[in-house]
Amino acid sequence: MQANTRILGIDPGSRVTGFGVIDVAGRHHSYVASGCIKTPVGAPLAERIAVIVRHINEIIVTYRPTQTAVEQVFVNVNPAATLMLGQARGAAIAALTLHDLPVYEYTALQVKQAVVGKGKAAKEQVQHMVVQMLALSGTPQADAADGLAVALTHALRNHSLAAQIQHGLTIKAGRFR
Amino acid sequence: MQANTRILGIDPGSRVTGFGVIDVAGRHHSYVASGCIKTPVGAPLAERIAVIVRHINEIIVTYRPTQTAVEQVFVNVNPAATLMLGQARGAAIAALTLHDLPVYEYTALQVKQAVVGKGKAAKEQVQHMVVQMLALSGTPQADAADGLAVALTHALRNHSLAAQIQHGLTIKAGRFR
Repeated sequence: MQANTRILGIDPGSRVTGFGVIDVAGRHHSYVASGCIKTPVGAPLAERIAVIVRHINEIIVTYRPTQTAVEQVFVNVNPAATLMLGQARGAAIAALTLHDLPVYEYTALQVKQAVVGKGKAAKEQVQHMVVQMLALSGTPQADAADGLAVALTHALRNHSLAAQIQHGLTIKAGRFR
Repeated sequence: MQANTRILGIDPGSRVTGFGVIDVAGRHHSYVASGCIKTPVGAPLAERIAVIVRHINEIIVTYRPTQTAVEQVFVNVNPAATLMLGQARGAAIAALTLHDLPVYEYTALQVKQAVVGKGKAAKEQVQHMVVQMLALSGTPQADAADGLAVALTHALRNHSLAAQIQHGLTIKAGRFR
């Protein structure tokens, strides 16, 4: 990972898409921004997708991330909900690819393991660790915390990857484009 | 519907996205273009989404449609397949909304009813009717025919809507943005 990397983390959802931006310099992580993109409830699909694309575009233009990490969504048992979640996620990734940003993907399990240290962590533990790791003065809203958590996951996994390579192991980076 | 309308119809799929462009002048429909966007098999998701967005963008820049119609995808029983289909569809609609184009949605049932006259029509019947209605000299590939079929559906449904309004009925147009 480059000396100065700015990571945009995204946790897509059909109603709320969380995002978090962090700076990474060596082993130091610092908070830049976070928040939620809320799609208008009951609005037509195209309108909801337009809201996601427009806001992610604004975030990229404002914060100029160099890398992006997207949480792999939970595959719901309800097909209609899964389809809607997929559509929101597809729109979010479309917005990222428009800026030619590298997109990395992490499962919820990988995020919890990286941030809390165990895959079965509760949502509150993820929020708590995000506050600790970024030395925040308050607790961000759950979706924003998830956006920050996936950004931190990308940073942490690449630290350990870099360390392993230094120790003589050759590992293929899990880069997604 | 305006006197001269150019409709871009899209049939999203996780591997192949079909598209068709038609011109509508009154009750006359004419063929403009059609084809398939194939996403690289086995490529990472972001790459596949980038291919969809880039190609739809090129189609819009080349053919300058004034309206767009997107087929509502079949909700698969396999959650992973449904998610992938949703992501491809979300990316396609994201590309349309970037050009501020109105997006209308039609179910496969509505497409078959509009083009063939019955909801249980086979794929070949849809292809056959597309060839007839647009006086094509050859049969387009199945996904391209589906793109043309959803564009024709939008044209036909708006004709009948316009006719009903002329006969004194007030009907809310099914506009999606």
